[in-house]
Order: sequence, then structure tokens, then C-alpha cells
Amino acid sequence: MTSGVGVPTGQYKVIGARPVRHDGIPKVTGEARYGSDVYLPGMLYGKVLRSPHPHAVIKSIDTSRAEARPDVRAVATAQDLVTSGGVGKEVALGVTQTDNILASRKVLYKGHPVAAVAAASPHVAEEALSLIDVQYEPLPAVTNVEDAMKPDAPWLHESWAADEADAPNVAGRERHTYGDPDAGFESADVVVEREFRTQTVHQGYIEPQNATAWWEPGGRLTIWCSSQGHFGIRGNTARALGLPESQVKVVPMEIGGGFGGKLNVYLEPIAAALSRKSGRPVKMWMTRAEVLEATGPAAGGYVRVKMGATREGRITAAQAHYAYEAGAYPGAPLAAAAAAVFAPYDIANVRIDGLDVVDNKPKTSAYRAPGATVAVFAVESVVDELAERLEIDPVELRLLNAAREGTRRADGVMNVRIGAEEVMEAVREHPHYAAPLDAPQDGKLRGRGVAMGFCRNNSGMACVVANVLDDGKVSLVEGSVDVGGSRTAVSQQFAEVLGLSVEDVIPQVADTDTIGYTSNTGGSGVAYKSGWAAHDAANDVKRQLIERAALLWETSPEDVEYVDGALRHRSDPELSMTFTEIAALLPETGGPVVGRANINPGGMHGSYSANIVDVEIDPETGKVDILRFTAFQDAGKAIHPSYVEGQIQGGSAQGIGWALNEEYFMSDDGRLLNASFLDYRMPTSYDVPMIETVVVEAPSALHPFGVRGVGEANIVPPPAAIANAIHNAASVRMNRLPMSPAAVLAAMS
Amino acid sequence: MTSGVGVPTGQYKVIGARPVRHDGIPKVTGEARYGSDVYLPGMLYGKVLRSPHPHAVIKSIDTSRAEARPDVRAVATAQDLVTSGGVGKEVALGVTQTDNILASRKVLYKGHPVAAVAAASPHVAEEALSLIDVQYEPLPAVTNVEDAMKPDAPWLHESWAADEADAPNVAGRERHTYGDPDAGFESADVVVEREFRTQTVHQGYIEPQNATAWWEPGGRLTIWCSSQGHFGIRGNTARALGLPESQVKVVPMEIGGGFGGKLNVYLEPIAAALSRKSGRPVKMWMTRAEVLEATGPAAGGYVRVKMGATREGRITAAQAHYAYEAGAYPGAPLAAAAAAVFAPYDIANVRIDGLDVVDNKPKTSAYRAPGATVAVFAVESVVDELAERLEIDPVELRLLNAAREGTRRADGVMNVRIGAEEVMEAVREHPHYAAPLDAPQDGKLRGRGVAMGFCRNNSGMACVVANVLDDGKVSLVEGSVDVGGSRTAVSQQFAEVLGLSVEDVIPQVADTDTIGYTSNTGGSGVAYKSGWAAHDAANDVKRQLIERAALLWETSPEDVEYVDGALRHRSDPELSMTFTEIAALLPETGGPVVGRANINPGGMHGSYSANIVDVEIDPETGKVDILRFTAFQDAGKAIHPSYVEGQIQGGSAQGIGWALNEEYFMSDDGRLLNASFLDYRMPTSYDVPMIETVVVEAPSALHPFGVRGVGEANIVPPPAAIANAIHNAASVRMNRLPMSPAAVLAAMS
Repeated sequence: MTSGVGVPTGQYKVIGARPVRHDGIPKVTGEARYGSDVYLPGMLYGKVLRSPHPHAVIKSIDTSRAEARPDVRAVATAQDLVTSGGVGKEVALGVTQTDNILASRKVLYKGHPVAAVAAASPHVAEEALSLIDVQYEPLPAVTNVEDAMKPDAPWLHESWAADEADAPNVAGRERHTYGDPDAGFESADVVVEREFRTQTVHQGYIEPQNATAWWEPGGRLTIWCSSQGHFGIRGNTARALGLPESQVKVVPMEIGGGFGGKLNVYLEPIAAALSRKSGRPVKMWMTRAEVLEATGPAAGGYVRVKMGATREGRITAAQAHYAYEAGAYPGAPLAAAAAAVFAPYDIANVRIDGLDVVDNKPKTSAYRAPGATVAVFAVESVVDELAERLEIDPVELRLLNAAREGTRRADGVMNVRIGAEEVMEAVREHPHYAAPLDAPQDGKLRGRGVAMGFCRNNSGMACVVANVLDDGKVSLVEGSVDVGGSRTAVSQQFAEVLGLSVEDVIPQVADTDTIGYTSNTGGSGVAYKSGWAAHDAANDVKRQLIERAALLWETSPEDVEYVDGALRHRSDPELSMTFTEIAALLPETGGPVVGRANINPGGMHGSYSANIVDVEIDPETGKVDILRFTAFQDAGKAIHPSYVEGQIQGGSAQGIGWALNEEYFMSDDGRLLNASFLDYRMPTSYDVPMIETVVVEAPSALHPFGVRGVGEANIVPPPAAIANAIHNAASVRMNRLPMSPAAVLAAMS
Repeated sequence: MTSGVGVPTGQYKVIGARPVRHDGIPKVTGEARYGSDVYLPGMLYGKVLRSPHPHAVIKSIDTSRAEARPDVRAVATAQDLVTSGGVGKEVALGVTQTDNILASRKVLYKGHPVAAVAAASPHVAEEALSLIDVQYEPLPAVTNVEDAMKPDAPWLHESWAADEADAPNVAGRERHTYGDPDAGFESADVVVEREFRTQTVHQGYIEPQNATAWWEPGGRLTIWCSSQGHFGIRGNTARALGLPESQVKVVPMEIGGGFGGKLNVYLEPIAAALSRKSGRPVKMWMTRAEVLEATGPAAGGYVRVKMGATREGRITAAQAHYAYEAGAYPGAPLAAAAAAVFAPYDIANVRIDGLDVVDNKPKTSAYRAPGATVAVFAVESVVDELAERLEIDPVELRLLNAAREGTRRADGVMNVRIGAEEVMEAVREHPHYAAPLDAPQDGKLRGRGVAMGFCRNNSGMACVVANVLDDGKVSLVEGSVDVGGSRTAVSQQFAEVLGLSVEDVIPQVADTDTIGYTSNTGGSGVAYKSGWAAHDAANDVKRQLIERAALLWETSPEDVEYVDGALRHRSDPELSMTFTEIAALLPETGGPVVGRANINPGGMHGSYSANIVDVEIDPETGKVDILRFTAFQDAGKAIHPSYVEGQIQGGSAQGIGWALNEEYFMSDDGRLLNASFLDYRMPTSYDVPMIETVVVEAPSALHPFGVRGVGEANIVPPPAAIANAIHNAASVRMNRLPMSPAAVLAAMS
């Protein structure tokens, strides 16, 4: 069930409609080509040797026995990459941490790649890994963010300057202060301060990482892989190998989920190094255990939040301290956390302090609304407690303090037109919020919670080329990897400008040699930036068609207008041509028409979200069931409402998994104990009810169609909303994630 | 050995240079991907059942036994295509002769496709062909152009109106008359009239036809194949299958030679039909025998030429009648023949009459300078005889009558700036022409001959997109299939405009969904049209870079100039930036820079050629050896002189093969007797001496760099030049091709 709020009707014809997605049938029928479908003549298969230790010095790597095996075609180690040298914090802070691709001096987590083998069969390659002799000197490991900051913790990167205050394992710090937080807390009638702890979770995409590389004899390197941005893969692979970017071409394959976890390179440079050495194409893919043990999960962390409010419910001050776990190398999403932590609110006095902490776990990666979920879980739990203490309805408290245009976020950004109020008003008006909770049976407990969420979203460079075909269709070439249906959302924006149907547009995502630089698919940015580029490319087509019509009608372009998919002479009603009609006349009027846009629009267009959730708790087991779940999100403008709803539902499901069950179980000796989908407990269809969605539309003032981006904000509110519902049901405040049966039972007893 | 005539020096930096070709290393090392390298998951293999009869009615086709075989996945017949219905000459004259793809009612040559099978292995597919039961009613066949025009000849297309004068097998006629030919002959002092006959020859490309088709479940059809124009393959495949063009995507693979023979569809629609029926990708390729028996060879023909001249050597009238063999379906190159036949000369009174004649041989296709070689062989033999009779040096006679700007060609086209005189002047001045012929040994005979040639060349639509990469390179996307190195020639024209090196340009030929419509690679048109598009796209890049520099320098674009690969402020010498420097600054100045051109330049830019050839004849065997061969050709402007020389050498070698050895030997019952490269006698390196080339440059007045196109005119003069040399050696006039040992011996005795 879905409803829309604030949707302008009749303004658009294609935007806001729900056409069949271009990639629907190909994906359902198996026609879509993923990385695993790549096959090249003479192709070899590569496998990775990984560290059995969570922390150790590599004393030596002897690959000679493996190389001597006749059916082994190449062996690669860190020597085949441009190593960072491993010296200095600034090196480890760099974008390309080649040591994470193949370790040179130390291994920093169990599963850390050390060497790789290419052979004619994957089985031979795997077997040959055992012939590589690596001598390690094991070191004590630390796999917890708080332990990692203790003075006696083992140092992952010993070269970091010992005189830095944040030593030993703190890689970076982000602080913001506005107003006078201490005075703000003084003026509060109620102050709540709480601590929260969350565990490492994984994005859980279905398709494991894979890459096929061909280092062609002429020197150019081609890589076929799925990713969230083949231009990013190109850049990082080139840097890891010491090549100019123009020497590398990356061909984007269909992607089986990313959620932020497919922005980084893992196998690509290794496959390339093996290809260079063997002279043959090399294909590699990860097992599920490799994915869980060695690709970027999302940061767990420690958060302490303090908020104060007047008796009337005005929040006077807020303070957050959080330490995010980056894994083996720096990169916790501090800036994104700072943007999100108090984003729903207008607070005059704020202090935030974030830490980026390394420990002996795989280097974390982005995960849907990076940095936001953990911080907002803490803040929205505290806001709920404030509301309880103040005896103010939690939705009313949020509306009373809602951020709006002109207020300032905790990271200093001044809000433009945002939808925080609209989202909370939609919550207040929704039947779910007023609906009575049925009495539970069998001694179970029921409760309802609400929470808000936010993601700042991103923009970036984007290119689109549009070829008008002679039967009146258009082939649309774009650079944004399509993770969640953006081919269609971008095509809709193109079609809208020209009055076409979306079925008239044939979209494709082209490789890095074919389309201009387009930034990663992340930050909910594709419908925004590539949609904007499509809008501009369509206007470029329109301009050229007007010129062609003027030529045919022997008039000036000023006399021709393009309305509703047709060209018209402004003063001669006899003269008109449809898009299809003029498409057939292009050869005679100067040749094909090709539209183009290459832009870097920038812009802030954050998206707000909220949940209402009803839970039932089994007090005997601590198990929490979701009875009803309504998810609200501001799309700015929903280009394809079904996709927006799908994004909201998907993010909600992931948020529910994060809230209730998902976590990395680490052994005392630093190993991941649940490295399979059987043991890593993601929600299934048995765990999640139908998620009702409410698409709010508070258009972005920047984007030609008001798009904000919808991919991320939806994952943010579920943990807090569920925690607040648990409190409503059982009068206990959960201060950790996941709120597993054991944790809930412990809290209740 | 090579020399250049009329080459402007210093005008260009990249144009006229000889950089390593972009496709050189990939092709030498085996990295280049041809159609046979295509592999798709679940792919099937298709084979074609072909007619054993040269002419027969298909009474029935029973595919049930083949279909019943469990390992046969699909069987296709003409029923799977949109058949032309086979009614009326105008249908058979249409572009898409689907009956030539799969015969519906009649078979018209041995090897005519009748049905096809797809199976998991090519061997199963081949074996299953024998399970298809085709009932034929054999008809008398005719495999000779003169026999085909006899009143009692069997009619190939009975439905053609019997009341047409050209019946039975004449499909079309092209006549031109200018001036008063009869009066012209009256005023001549010498008139020569001769008959000539030539045989069918094949283009002899190394790579057999191949196609892989995937009719995707979503309805779109993708085809991977080599061709001389994937947009043409798209159109013809779509028409054969009754699809809109936009439903078909053709991916161009590297091509192993075409010479005009890879403009047509053969396997593509069959593979598509088999894919539709099986739901799987289907790959097909031809054997060499299939290539020779069932793909388009070049028209053989009958030519009668009459020319008259005054005592002083002025040609007063010329007349040509030619009947070209089209094979099973119409399409002999009458218009191109009319353009070429008397093209070297300025003649006031001309009459030409060409016939397009069908017979029971495979439908002919274009072959390098279509229509020109056979007609010019006749004309240049007659001109040589005129010179002999008039006792005028044959080169002087040609110069005396040379066509030039403002004179009219036999097909009515007024000549723009052309290079006929420049080519013949280069011949006259060349040391080869004055060099003494060494005395032969062992009773052999030696002689020297000259002849001219011409090809009208073509233009067409072309698109280029250029992406500026952030390290200062450019990826260049074009639509012209690269048969002979045009990637580099197009890149040179792009690089010239921007002052880049050609190594800075990374060219690719994109598929039909990715680049705008670009016409076939034929008519020597790619360096012309796609080079022009590259020139325009580079200027588009230049314009944008000037705007970006103006933004950075806070000035107006008018204050910025682009000179020698760098931006400069016109009045502030401190302000300058190289291309590479600004390439790195594009993100901050508005995003990527993408250049574009989509053009249809048109234009006439015919190319003239000539040969001087020395031969030695063994009077005992009739074998003719080429002792020395110098080939001249007007390139307009030679973009990459090595390519131009290579084109001249390749065309000369093919012309020598056509002159001396190549022919289709047909049995009395209409079968090709030499359907292998062992028996079809193409020249090898033992047969051809080093071909000296002289690149003449009489720039086209139309093209921005003066390009004319160089792929074809070179094949035209060899047969006549060799015939004239044979006459010079042995005092016999050869009036047939090939001038095989048996034919020469017969003429000499």
C-alpha cells in the first residue's frame, strides 16, 4: 500500500508514471549480463591467498613452488602493485590503499589478501595457493572500536606518529561546535545523555565481487566487473598499478546489489596483475565467505548523545560523540555522520566530535546513508526519551523542533528547501499513527515507535549522449551505473522534455572509453545528476530538431516551437511534424541528431525519512516481531514512484535487519564466526511485513524536476523506531544494536 | 619504394605523418576480437542447408525429422523471415532480397540457403541438416551473362513482366548520351571498336562471414558480426525480420577483410531467427566453400567499346555497351560503371548503355571500385590501341584528353577539382616510364604497359563523440567500421585540430546503440566523412576548452585562443595552459568536456589512378610474370601515407589477380568447380613483385583537409595496364579476363 503526499498532478506526463523498467525482462529472464557471464578466449582463472591471522607481520612470501607448477600461469603479490610504502598516516589515509588489495608488510585482518594465482581452471588456481609459503609473525589483534582506542592496544599502523593525541589507532577526527552548548544545556529543563554501541554489519548484496581483466599486449588494460562506478574503478585500478587512467578501460556489467559496498577495488588490480604476467585474460570472483571476511562492511561504533530541552519542548542544546570503526584502514564516514546526526532539528547550540578508528577487521565501506544510521539510532532514541520525560507526543516534539530552510545543520551547512517538516506532518496525519494497537495474545507485549532519518545525498559529474534513431526512438548513453533502476528514471527525464514515451528511449550504461566521466553511483545521486544531464541532452536534441524543421520549412528557428512531442510553426498551423516524422528526415537535413550533456551540477538536496513501527515482543525469548511498518520519505520529486517505493522498502528491510539481527560475531582470536548467509542473519520475507510507503514530495529547488535522490535516507530510522517501539511495549531502552532476542531478553530482565 | 608528388610540407603536424596504427599491436598479437571470438553463455551453433541445384523450384521443405531430434534446438526456413513474396521485378530490385537469405519458392544458385539448424554443437547442427527433406523440381540453369540474355534462356524470375523489352533476365538498364556520338565518330580519323569478356571473381577476404545473434527475451535483438557497416547490417536484418530498426543492435567486431563483400547480410537474419526460436544465442560462420559459393562475388561481364580520335590525338567520341552479371538477384553496379568508364577523359560525344543481368550464380556484391575495373579494362585497352594506331605516346594521348575541373563525366556529373592530369603527369615524369626494358632471356618476351583508373568514391552520414580524459588523452567514439586503418586516419584528423599527438587519441568503433548513424565503410569514404566529423568534433572540444579557460581566467572567450595544443590569453602572455593542464581542471569548470559532430557532408571527390607495368611472357606456357609495377593514385591529401601506400599496393595486387588468374570455373551443370583457396587462384607473394607507389596529392576542394579517399581506384588500372604490356611484348591484344597462361597462349597462337 502506498500513498503520495504533496504530489503535483498533471504537471508531467512521463515523470511520475510507473512504466515497466528497461532492465526488468532481461533480469527476470537471465538475459542480463553480469560479471560472471564474461568469457574471453584463452581466459584464466584467479584465486586469492588470504591471511589466516587478524594481525601479523609478513616475514616472507615464497611463491617459487607455485610458480614451478606447470599449470600455474602467473602468481601475483604486492610487488606487482604500486605499494603505498605503508609509511605515515597520510599515506594510509589516501584514497588508494593498495595494501588492502595485496598486503605488502603486514596483514591487518583475517582474510587480508597476500598473494594470488592464475591457472587454466579455478580448481588448479585454488590448489596452487597452498604452494605459496608465507611466513608470518603474529601480533595481538583488536577487533573492537573501544578496545582499539585504549593506550595499551596493539597499533595497526606503527608508523603513525606517536605524538599525535589520537594515537594509537585513531586515524582522524571531525569536530563541530555552534552556539554555546554548555549554556544551552544550562537553559534546558530536561537533559538526557545516553551511550550506544553497534556492531559491524555487511551490505549483504547477493552478487559477490568479481572481475575479469585483460592486460592487452598493446598495453591497454580492460576490466569487466560490476561496481557502483566504473570510472572510480578505473581510477583506483590505475593508481594501484601505476598507470595513467587513459590506459585503463572498465566495462560495467550488471550489478547484483552494492549498497555502498561496490565502490572499492578488490579483485580488479589483482586480476590485472595476473593478466599482465600471464599475457591472458584472467577472471576472478569471491566466495561468500571472502565477501564477508574481506570486503567492506559498515562501521560499527560507539555513540554518546546528550540533548536538552525546555519544558515546552524546545531543544536547547545537543552534543554527540561517536567513534566509528573503520576496519584495517582509515575511512569511517565522519562527515556524513556529522551531516546526519541532528539533521532533522533546528538546534542553536551543538557540539559534535567524531573519531575514525582502525582495528583488525576488513576495511569498512560505505553502506546506504553512510554514517547516518548509527548516529541517528542514538539521537532518535534520546529524542524519544526526551518526549517521554516532557510528556509531549514524540511527533509533535519533532515538528516543534523541525529543521527547515534557513536553519543550520550540525556540520555547518545552511539548509536550503528541505522536507523535514513535510515528512513529520505526513507521519502525524497518517492513519497508522492514530490506529489503536490491538491487544497482544499469549502474554506478548506490543508497542509503537517513531523515528526520523536523513541522508545528505550527493551529486557529481555526469554525461549523457542521445542518438535519435530513424524510426523515432532514441538510444540514450549514460555513465551512471544502474544499481536500482536508474536507467528508467533517467530515461523518463529525457522523455519528459521531448514529449516521448519512456519506451521510445533505449538506455545503456557505457564503458569508460565511450561516455564522458560520470561519478559513482552513490549518495542517491543518479536520478539527480544523470537525470539532469538527460534533461539537458534532451533540450540539446530539441534545439537541433527545431533547426532542422526550420530548414525544411524554410524559416528561422525562432518561428518553430516544440510542444508535446511535435514541432510546430508558430504562425502557420499547416506546418507541424511529430518527433517520429522528423526523425526520418534527418539524413536530408544535415545528418543524424545527437544530443549531449556533460555537467557537474553540484548541489545539496538531502532527503528526510521517518518510520512508524508496531512491534510485538515475546517476553520469554526476547524475539521482536514487526507487526506493521510505515515508511515515509521525501523524494523531492518521485520520477518513478514504484522505484521510490522499492527503495524505501529495501532500505527499511535493511534497517530492520540492522536493528534486530545482523552483526559480525568475532572470535577472541579475531576471526569472523558467521561468514555465510546461513549464519549472518539477514531478514527474509518471513521476518519483514509488507512495508507501507508514503512518498512525500518537497521538490528540490535546484534540480530541473525537483529530484532529491531516494536511495539512502530510508535505512536510517528503523533501528531507532524499533527501539522506541520496544520501549513503548516493554519499557526498556535498548542501547545496542542488534536488538537480538538475547539482547532484548537481557535488557528486560 | 614510395615517393610523393605535390605534397605540401609543413602545413600539418599529425596529418601526413606515419604513426603506429592503433590496431597494429592488437591485430599482430591476437588480442583483437573478431566475430569468431564471440562467446555467450548458453550459446548454440547454427549451420545452413544449401541447394545442390543451380536452379530449381522448391516443392516442399519438411523439417520435422530434424526438429524431432532432441539435440536440435531450432530449425529455420524462409517462413521465419519477412519474405518479399517473390513477385514483380520491383520487389526483386529492392534492397533486401530476403529470398537470398533463405529461399522461399525457388533456389537460384548452387549453395542458395534453404534452411538452417541450431544445436548445442556445430557438428550436431551440421549432421541434422541431412534430416531436412527438401523436394526440388530442377530447372535449366544459365551461368553466363550473354546466355542469360538469349530469348530462349531460362527465366530466373518468371514473374517479371514478359512485355518488358529487356526480358528475360535483364533487371535494369542505364543509358547516357551526351553530344552527338555519331557525328563524333564521323569526325574521327581513327575509330577502334572492340569486345571484351570477363569472368566472375571473388573479393577473397580472409575472414569468412560470421554472426552471433541473441534475440533477447525482452524482444531486443543483438548481433555481433564483422561487416563493412553495422548500421547497414542493422537495417537489412531488421527489414528481413520485420522489426523496427531500433529493436536491433549490431556490435561491430574486427573485420578480416571485406573489399565490398561484407556490406550484405547473409547469416545475421538466420542466426536471429534461430535465436528467437531457441531462446538462446546462436553463433554461425561459413566455411570457405560457402563463402565462394554463396556470398557476393564481383560481376563478370561483356563490354563493347568504341572510341574515335583525330589524327592529332583528340578523342572525338566514345561509346560503351556493357552487360554486367548480377548473379541470382539484380544489383550490378551500373551507375558506378557509368561514372568510371570514360572518367579519365574529356570527351564531347558519349553514349553508354549498361545492363544489369541475372543468372544462376550467387548474387554479386560490391568489389573495390564496383563496376569500374571491367569497363575500364575495355576502355584503356582501346585507348592503348588508339595511341598505337595514331603513333602517339599513350601517356601523351591521355594527357591530351585528360578530364579536368569543369569537364563532364559520362554519367553527366560535372567535374570539380580532380587529379587526372596530375596523376598522368606523375606517370610521365616517373623514372620507370623512361627506364629501358632489359632484354629477356630464354626466348621470353618483355613489354611495358600503362593504363589509368578511377573510382568516384562516396560520402555519407558520420558521427563522432570525443571524451576528454582527465590525464589529457581523448577517447574518440566513431561509427565507421575500420577495415583498413581508418581509426588512425580519423584520429589524426582529430589530433591535428587540437595540436595533440595521435597517441593521445584512443579511438573505438561503437555499436549501433552507442554512436549516431554512420553510413557504410565503402566508397573509400571513411577518412573523408568520419575524418570530417572528427575535425568538427575537435573544434567543438576546442570551443568548450576556450570557454573553460575564460572561466578560469575570469575573462571572455573572445580573449582566449587555442594554438599548438595550448590555450593562451590573447593579451596576457602570463596566462596559458596546455591541453593536458586544462583536462585536469574540467571538474571545477563545469564538468567533463565532450565533443560531438553529426554530419552528412555529401560531396564528390573521385580519385584517379594509373599503373606502369613491365611484364615477361613465357611463350611456351603463356604465363605472364610481373617484373616491375608502379602504381600512382591521387589521395587528395594523404592523411597517413603508409596507409595510402598500403591501399594502393593491396588494390594493385587484387587487380593483378583479377588480370591474370582469378575466375569462377563453372561446370556445365552450374556448379562452382574451384570453391577453395587451393583452386581459386589468388596471387601470393610469389606472384607479385614489390609494388612501388606514388601518392599524388590534388586536394579535394570540399574536405577540410582535402581528403579524397584512397581505397578503390587502385584496383582499376592493372588489367588494362597488363593487357597493354602483353601487347607491347607479344603484339597480341587480350580481350578477356583473366589473362591466364592458357588464354595468353591461345591469343599468341
